[in-house]
Amino acid sequence: MKYQLKIEVSLKPGHSDPEGETTAHLLKELGYKVEKVNVSKIYSVVLDAESEKEAETKAEEMCRRLLANPTKDNYAIVIEEEK
Amino acid sequence: MKYQLKIEVSLKPGHSDPEGETTAHLLKELGYKVEKVNVSKIYSVVLDAESEKEAETKAEEMCRRLLANPTKDNYAIVIEEEK
Repeated sequence: MKYQLKIEVSLKPGHSDPEGETTAHLLKELGYKVEKVNVSKIYSVVLDAESEKEAETKAEEMCRRLLANPTKDNYAIVIEEEK
Repeated sequence: MKYQLKIEVSLKPGHSDPEGETTAHLLKELGYKVEKVNVSKIYSVVLDAESEKEAETKAEEMCRRLLANPTKDNYAIVIEEEK
């Protein structure tokens, strides 16, 4: 079965986000009343797995082993069966 | 009023996504049955606006003027009132 994983990796609060700060600065220069910008990343992964449970376990593992840095990143996983 | 915008900027289909390809390759090397990976970006923006309608108009403008490249990017906007 194929599953579509959406994995959002974002910085933990308190970690500096230079890309977000630069984006906020540029948006303010363009005249927008922006207070804060944070940038995070979405990995959309098509994964072959036996069950939704297995897909979830694998997604957790991928985050810990490759996609997220445990000292500075949070991650959130959403799983859907691939249509 | 403060609004929380979540703006997802992703590549249009057919555009090459080297970061996604590299991630897919690495995940396969780690033994995961990954078919495809696409990487997109989320800008979480706190914006001051009079109404949800205004926040939406501004968010569209920001995408066109700064956050998305119309030749290669799609974008999706979700707006929530900031708690």
